[in-house]
Amino acid sequence: MKIEPRTLKGFRDFLPKDAKKRQYVLETLKRVFESYGFEPLETPALEYEDILAGKYGDEGDKLMYRFTDNGDRRVALRYDQTVPLARVVAQYQNELPTPFKRYQIQNVWRAENTQRGRYREFLQVDADIVGAYSPLSDAEIIAVAVRGLEELGFKQFKILINDRSVLTKLVDEGIFKESEMPGIVRSIDKIKKIGDQGVIEEIVSEGFTKEKATEILNKIKEQEKSDTLEDISAYLEGLNLDKDIFKYEPTLARGLDYYTGLIFEVEIEGYTVGSVAGGGRYDNLIGMFAGKEIPAVGFAFGFDRLMEAMDALNLFPANLSTSKALVAFATSELEEKALEIANGLRNKKINCEVYPEETTLEKQLKYADKKQIPYVVIIDGEKMVLKDMEKRTQEELTLDQILKILS
Amino acid sequence: MKIEPRTLKGFRDFLPKDAKKRQYVLETLKRVFESYGFEPLETPALEYEDILAGKYGDEGDKLMYRFTDNGDRRVALRYDQTVPLARVVAQYQNELPTPFKRYQIQNVWRAENTQRGRYREFLQVDADIVGAYSPLSDAEIIAVAVRGLEELGFKQFKILINDRSVLTKLVDEGIFKESEMPGIVRSIDKIKKIGDQGVIEEIVSEGFTKEKATEILNKIKEQEKSDTLEDISAYLEGLNLDKDIFKYEPTLARGLDYYTGLIFEVEIEGYTVGSVAGGGRYDNLIGMFAGKEIPAVGFAFGFDRLMEAMDALNLFPANLSTSKALVAFATSELEEKALEIANGLRNKKINCEVYPEETTLEKQLKYADKKQIPYVVIIDGEKMVLKDMEKRTQEELTLDQILKILS
Repeated sequence: MKIEPRTLKGFRDFLPKDAKKRQYVLETLKRVFESYGFEPLETPALEYEDILAGKYGDEGDKLMYRFTDNGDRRVALRYDQTVPLARVVAQYQNELPTPFKRYQIQNVWRAENTQRGRYREFLQVDADIVGAYSPLSDAEIIAVAVRGLEELGFKQFKILINDRSVLTKLVDEGIFKESEMPGIVRSIDKIKKIGDQGVIEEIVSEGFTKEKATEILNKIKEQEKSDTLEDISAYLEGLNLDKDIFKYEPTLARGLDYYTGLIFEVEIEGYTVGSVAGGGRYDNLIGMFAGKEIPAVGFAFGFDRLMEAMDALNLFPANLSTSKALVAFATSELEEKALEIANGLRNKKINCEVYPEETTLEKQLKYADKKQIPYVVIIDGEKMVLKDMEKRTQEELTLDQILKILS
Repeated sequence: MKIEPRTLKGFRDFLPKDAKKRQYVLETLKRVFESYGFEPLETPALEYEDILAGKYGDEGDKLMYRFTDNGDRRVALRYDQTVPLARVVAQYQNELPTPFKRYQIQNVWRAENTQRGRYREFLQVDADIVGAYSPLSDAEIIAVAVRGLEELGFKQFKILINDRSVLTKLVDEGIFKESEMPGIVRSIDKIKKIGDQGVIEEIVSEGFTKEKATEILNKIKEQEKSDTLEDISAYLEGLNLDKDIFKYEPTLARGLDYYTGLIFEVEIEGYTVGSVAGGGRYDNLIGMFAGKEIPAVGFAFGFDRLMEAMDALNLFPANLSTSKALVAFATSELEEKALEIANGLRNKKINCEVYPEETTLEKQLKYADKKQIPYVVIIDGEKMVLKDMEKRTQEELTLDQILKILS
């Protein structure tokens, strides 16, 4: 029986061309995270179901991949990286430094309806500081996000910031009840898409009169920058960040219920699909397994969107080829000589390869083209010819001259 | 209800200390793979069950994690990286270069009985050349394995090599039948553990007389190096590899049925748990979805064993700390100055961090200790003191002097 080679809907293969782009972005971001002292953490793909279930609301419970394993245990696939972080913080309290600054880059699985830019397996790229309440830690999280974008080559972007506690203040003022906050957050979250009138209708659908809904939206829009945001801004200036990229936006809501203070989102000019990064402070979540309040602030890059934005703005290096050169043999007796030259190049830290079978020069050149290898060194008797595959030029050179060009 | 923070048996968290060691090894190996023109490939964690089922024998079918997803599809978690590679090769025939040289580093899941060094989630590190029959490609695979070990710092190791086709030759000579080969491979595979007599008993248990079993083992031991192995050896010399690390071992069997030519294993002196890498040629496997023979040769590092061997031989760099320095503030008014200095260090490519909360100097030093950060720069009024955390020495220095030491 012939089995058709195929992948599940919402799951992707990454062939070398794309896998290399992904690695380029991840290596850049890791370097940035580490330059600020964030350290890597890995957690298992499978967890006991009771660790994950009920932590992401009804939708999460519905979309989570879960099943019974061979040992009759109920298990679930990682759904995000925050609940596993909360588990780790409780499980290894004495081994981890406080504050704990970690980054985590792993796949998560969600049985979403697939649509443009939505997958069932996708990479999350998170950085968080656990165990610090200070606005300094808030500012650092923003600074890391900004540095990451800069290192990837983004020039024009805006960081929208707000303080979720502003809503709590409106509760204190009696404008609405605490229990009504999640519905209001969900409503305001849509303001970019549906405008003021749309938001008012959404709030009405949460059970308010139109007058009250209008009052709520106006109250929110009138809010001044909180003291915390002022402190964060001061730190950001100290970190030498350009003030103009920050924009206070009192209607910024971010969908998730769990934020308690700072929230922020990153918008890239020229890429309108949505924010490529976002985060905030969430002081009531990480302690869920430890049984006490543990403050935390963090953010995540939307990796697939980030990749899309990089492509849209043409920010990938022109050539991400693994090999700098193919060392080709004009005739098959020269194969061993090609191997030797290739070895010499490798010793000079130049990535290169030899076609791994006796074949014609033509086929070797086609191979270099297909792999987008920028140079071919043709070994032709005593001669060596360097072919520039992009410019389609070639020149007879000495080994030393070739080394100089390839280094 | 309090949920106990815990992980499933056979699944592991990697806290920063271990995660950094893993990254160090993986970055080294990736660099080596890429220096030979191998390119990265990623495939999904979940596949349609029929892609994986029946490809790994009865044991594989038993140990595979499989379940019915929310859309009533039968799915299975990645069990190795070879069957997904075969699927990819069939699915994207026109997009991939030929030969296709890829490396792949992803987790696989197997519901094994857990015991020392056996896990249910573990990383596989594979490199393969698909589409070439030549001994040159065989030699290159061995060369990459050797270079990987050298770059990781291993000095004393042996590459045991053999040619599986020797057994086919014995079938041609009428010593045993082709259908009896898998049982004989399984038996010989144990020779290191159970010795000659043990192997003879194993062969007897496969249905041979003691005399026949003895004859078979003797015949195998008498085999001379095949022409293919001679060719491979010649290439390896051309690649400048030390002849003494290779050892022809006619009883090397490697458990898996699917090898058709070269087989090899790597043994590290001073680490006796087992081989840390192994591979060979398997020309009848990769074509399973394409419906035609596609030759392939490859190898894998046993990542967990490699990590163990690195630890046993003390090959990890002394300090894998993410931050080179903590920039500490003697009093909290100096916090912003510390941030500024840290930013300056980062601009000089020095990874560093500031304790993300106002606190005492003592607490900052403890934090540096816990994170094994090698240096602390103490900002104390106009003075700057550099503390070497390992030597427990400190000295007042200028910023320029500090930069020189940290660079």
